[in-house]
Amino acid sequence: MNVTVHGRTQHFRTVTFDRARNSVLLIEQRLLPHEFKIVPAKSFKETAAAIRDMIVRGAGAIGATAAYGLAQGALAFRGNDLKKFSAHDEIVFQTLKAARPTAVDPVNAMNDVRREMARGKSIAEKQSLALAAAEEFANEDVRHCEEIGRHGAKLIHDGMRILTHCNAGWLAFVDIGTATAPMYAAQAAGKKFHVFCDETRPRSQGATLTAWELAQQKISHQIIADNAAGHLMQRGEIDLVIVGSDRTLGRTGEVANKIGTYTKAVLAARHKIPFYVAIPLSTIDWNLKCGIDIPIEERSEGEVLGAWGIVESSKSKVQSPKLRRYVRVANPSSGARNPGFDVTPAELITGIITPAGIFKPRELWRRRHELGFGG
Amino acid sequence: MNVTVHGRTQHFRTVTFDRARNSVLLIEQRLLPHEFKIVPAKSFKETAAAIRDMIVRGAGAIGATAAYGLAQGALAFRGNDLKKFSAHDEIVFQTLKAARPTAVDPVNAMNDVRREMARGKSIAEKQSLALAAAEEFANEDVRHCEEIGRHGAKLIHDGMRILTHCNAGWLAFVDIGTATAPMYAAQAAGKKFHVFCDETRPRSQGATLTAWELAQQKISHQIIADNAAGHLMQRGEIDLVIVGSDRTLGRTGEVANKIGTYTKAVLAARHKIPFYVAIPLSTIDWNLKCGIDIPIEERSEGEVLGAWGIVESSKSKVQSPKLRRYVRVANPSSGARNPGFDVTPAELITGIITPAGIFKPRELWRRRHELGFGG
Repeated sequence: MNVTVHGRTQHFRTVTFDRARNSVLLIEQRLLPHEFKIVPAKSFKETAAAIRDMIVRGAGAIGATAAYGLAQGALAFRGNDLKKFSAHDEIVFQTLKAARPTAVDPVNAMNDVRREMARGKSIAEKQSLALAAAEEFANEDVRHCEEIGRHGAKLIHDGMRILTHCNAGWLAFVDIGTATAPMYAAQAAGKKFHVFCDETRPRSQGATLTAWELAQQKISHQIIADNAAGHLMQRGEIDLVIVGSDRTLGRTGEVANKIGTYTKAVLAARHKIPFYVAIPLSTIDWNLKCGIDIPIEERSEGEVLGAWGIVESSKSKVQSPKLRRYVRVANPSSGARNPGFDVTPAELITGIITPAGIFKPRELWRRRHELGFGG
Repeated sequence: MNVTVHGRTQHFRTVTFDRARNSVLLIEQRLLPHEFKIVPAKSFKETAAAIRDMIVRGAGAIGATAAYGLAQGALAFRGNDLKKFSAHDEIVFQTLKAARPTAVDPVNAMNDVRREMARGKSIAEKQSLALAAAEEFANEDVRHCEEIGRHGAKLIHDGMRILTHCNAGWLAFVDIGTATAPMYAAQAAGKKFHVFCDETRPRSQGATLTAWELAQQKISHQIIADNAAGHLMQRGEIDLVIVGSDRTLGRTGEVANKIGTYTKAVLAARHKIPFYVAIPLSTIDWNLKCGIDIPIEERSEGEVLGAWGIVESSKSKVQSPKLRRYVRVANPSSGARNPGFDVTPAELITGIITPAGIFKPRELWRRRHELGFGG
């Protein structure tokens, strides 16, 4: 998407590859929304560290980063010994896998790259195939998001007020994003609309990342407290809800996503406001039988008990991002519960926007073969 | 209620009067939850300033503060000229009224004091009657909260998990509070239960004031993000919701309260969890015909775009409250919507807990005469 730096607007992907320097180029997401910076990961170890340290986050983005990291590791190999190359590749794979052990995207992406690499006979051929496969993985991620945008944009009409939750934008993918894809496509088609970004406590991804993206993209938007959506719906100020998903159950149409998504779905159903979930097909889980079995990560108390922000001095509103600090908001002697995700049942979901079209959540299982589930 | 300072537990009211020093004694609420301090307002002007500057906030608390302030002003008068006394009293009244121009409680409280004062013949008699009336106003506030507690405690059983939103605790009244009153009464009766405090963004009164109160009172509790209540209800972890209200419509049973209350009521109804609103009778509005006519204050964007907290250094977790700072969390180029309140319809409310008993919201109008509406 486009980012304006020092008054100049330029197109960026979240993850790209610099072949001349054998480096993975990443947006340093920990500095956002206060500073935009591209950082190079100059070796597969640095790439693994970038995944581990959250310089890059989001399913599609870490998948592409790992794919590039595997190719980067292969390209760094010197010598002619295929056995040594193979052993080296295994080290690269394990290093990148260990950077985010619970995520499936890096492993799936690297397996794609390895399948292609296996077709090469010489080391040089394998190296070249690896990079091509990583590029193809990234390009495919972009194409999928484009398709989500193409289908989803039909839901957006002039004058609409759209609610979104958390960040399922281009920063979480290679480009365009999922929940944001219909908005970007609608904007490209000349439609005018307004977006309310849920702040998305406790980590505030809506107030920071989504708001930053929409501001860069010059889409009219406002941040709201998570408490405010119900009131706005009641007063007729929200027409459509679009969110992303970390995992969608193919069997039941249940959707796991950032904590608070379920609440917005309940509110939308009460007010008869369409509630859509935008996902790449790779996040559909065809195996799990029941949403209650989705493990809900209990995150650290500190996220709820405080906030991260820029300390504003009385002199200037602009401060160096280096001054971003954690402040303790809550009563010091109190603790917190902090479930990171929740599960929204199919009955509350109007439709699932995928690269293959928009489906009713209960329709996924019946169409599983055309949607890529080899069962 | 009880507060533990330097290891010693003592009973405090939010507002009291020091006759020897003719001072209104207030808990400096802006320092909470990080520091507990009683500050004296040594003149009616200082008392007005304390109301204006939010040293004291909450309907019952500012009512009692204004009542004491009026008596304090009367007691400061020197001389025998009844006309001059009357003119002085009018200045005191207007000064205190102007401290929070939109609030009805200070005016109602001062009118109570003035009615009593009018019975006095000499200035000395009027001064004495004024203070007695202010004391009576404060004591009545406490009795009403005690009655709310007595009725509401019947709803709380051993092992219950209770959700509350914002702060309708003793800091908002002279003592005990409204939403918290049933909890304190149940605790006194030996019942064991757990409270989830909604953080209550954007001003975080749940994470700061309610959590502090419950911690002082040694009631088991945890703070949750406003996004988490729906998930906890879905997983069967909440049994009862009790909130306060700024204004309840006697005709319709609609309840105006802190933004997010409506969302919790919608969620509670979906999960068939009882949802109660605890109020003093004085907050019932017998005139307004429709909830949509309740003006919803749009508050400053800064509340949503950032947070107030203590900057924690790496050396020590305990910092001086003087270091409480505003941090900008959100994207610097984004704005916010910030409605301060919302309106919950009667159909979502299980019952209204009042000093006169627990009523269905639609029952208020039929019982208006016994509840004090002289119509």
